[in-house]
Amino acid sequence: MATWESAELAGLTVGVLGGTGDQGRGLGRRFSSAGLSVVLGSRDVARAEAAAAALPGDVRGADNATCAKEASVVVVAVPWEGHAALLAGLRDELAGKTVVDCVNPLGFDKQGAFALEVAEGSACQQAAALLPASTVVGAFHHLSAVQLLDPARETVDGDVLVVGDDRAATDLVQSLAALIPGMRGVYAGRLRNARQVEALTANLISVNRRYKAHAGIRVTDI
Amino acid sequence: MATWESAELAGLTVGVLGGTGDQGRGLGRRFSSAGLSVVLGSRDVARAEAAAAALPGDVRGADNATCAKEASVVVVAVPWEGHAALLAGLRDELAGKTVVDCVNPLGFDKQGAFALEVAEGSACQQAAALLPASTVVGAFHHLSAVQLLDPARETVDGDVLVVGDDRAATDLVQSLAALIPGMRGVYAGRLRNARQVEALTANLISVNRRYKAHAGIRVTDI
Repeated sequence: MATWESAELAGLTVGVLGGTGDQGRGLGRRFSSAGLSVVLGSRDVARAEAAAAALPGDVRGADNATCAKEASVVVVAVPWEGHAALLAGLRDELAGKTVVDCVNPLGFDKQGAFALEVAEGSACQQAAALLPASTVVGAFHHLSAVQLLDPARETVDGDVLVVGDDRAATDLVQSLAALIPGMRGVYAGRLRNARQVEALTANLISVNRRYKAHAGIRVTDI
Repeated sequence: MATWESAELAGLTVGVLGGTGDQGRGLGRRFSSAGLSVVLGSRDVARAEAAAAALPGDVRGADNATCAKEASVVVVAVPWEGHAALLAGLRDELAGKTVVDCVNPLGFDKQGAFALEVAEGSACQQAAALLPASTVVGAFHHLSAVQLLDPARETVDGDVLVVGDDRAATDLVQSLAALIPGMRGVYAGRLRNARQVEALTANLISVNRRYKAHAGIRVTDI
């Protein structure tokens, strides 16, 4: 399921917008541990630099625009509330790049998490609408930030469902996922089927609450 | 994850509406193999009886109304197109019962499967709206009918995501899933989070096409 060679991936710089959040730092940690160059982006450069300094490997901090400019693959890991505004402001910096959206549009109330309605259908489709010169792929929605960030944990067991309309881009993101020990990148359909991948995170939050777990998913029979 | 005792479940009669379809017959086969009484329901009694006769164990065929009346737990396995009309016509027969909806509202075109918009949010929520005197649970969405029907296959590897608002009913359905070797019933949230569970089937169809598989899912860390 990993079609890119490690040597090709080793030359990549991966940017993480919203790189100071738990999910962003967690992914940054795993990508740098796999040997990639990582740029954590934030609105606040000092926070980005502090977050980067706390991670092992080749990780630096930058403002979001610099992060987008310097990376060839850019992961979007901001809270849903800031998703549209951030991407609209980085259209030029992200042009021609693979943008990996892992944002889950969720609401929370006393009964737990629920999926929010998104006019474009999903966060991924919103990104694609806002970034017509980028190639948007959805991935990394179901990972536990706790597990990603835990330095004592060598593997992160779970599959990454990768959705997108461009084969080269989904292949690349599958290969990125496969760099993380324990993880596979599984092609799981087109961008029009991103919504339920994002929304499933609400169900995993319910699983976590019921079973006191950090649940992820595996695809069987592949 | 199975809170009901086998002895309690052994007394149950499970009805399957749309029991002559692949999914319905597959579930019927597995429930009867697990020792339950099964009634396959169909619009066409002769077809239901023929389908029942082809399965091992205590399986009989009936029209859908008789199936709904005779069973204490009723699985809805009809095509999405017939979902609303069927349930609206069985409101009285299904009153007071646990109704297990496994219907996936999907469309298909040359690019594959995609999730359909459902006014109520999901097939499960539509069922709940049409059956105010029943307890609706969503489950059994991601199973391969091919695997369910294969007599040479002793286990069906995969987790069943169980969604619903009534704890006793979701416990029961989790226990029913656990009767099938290889399968677990995993509580995965409230009915308002059923939509993405149903829609995820579109992604699994994409997985099947790409990997030539009969994909299902497992929840990790539980």
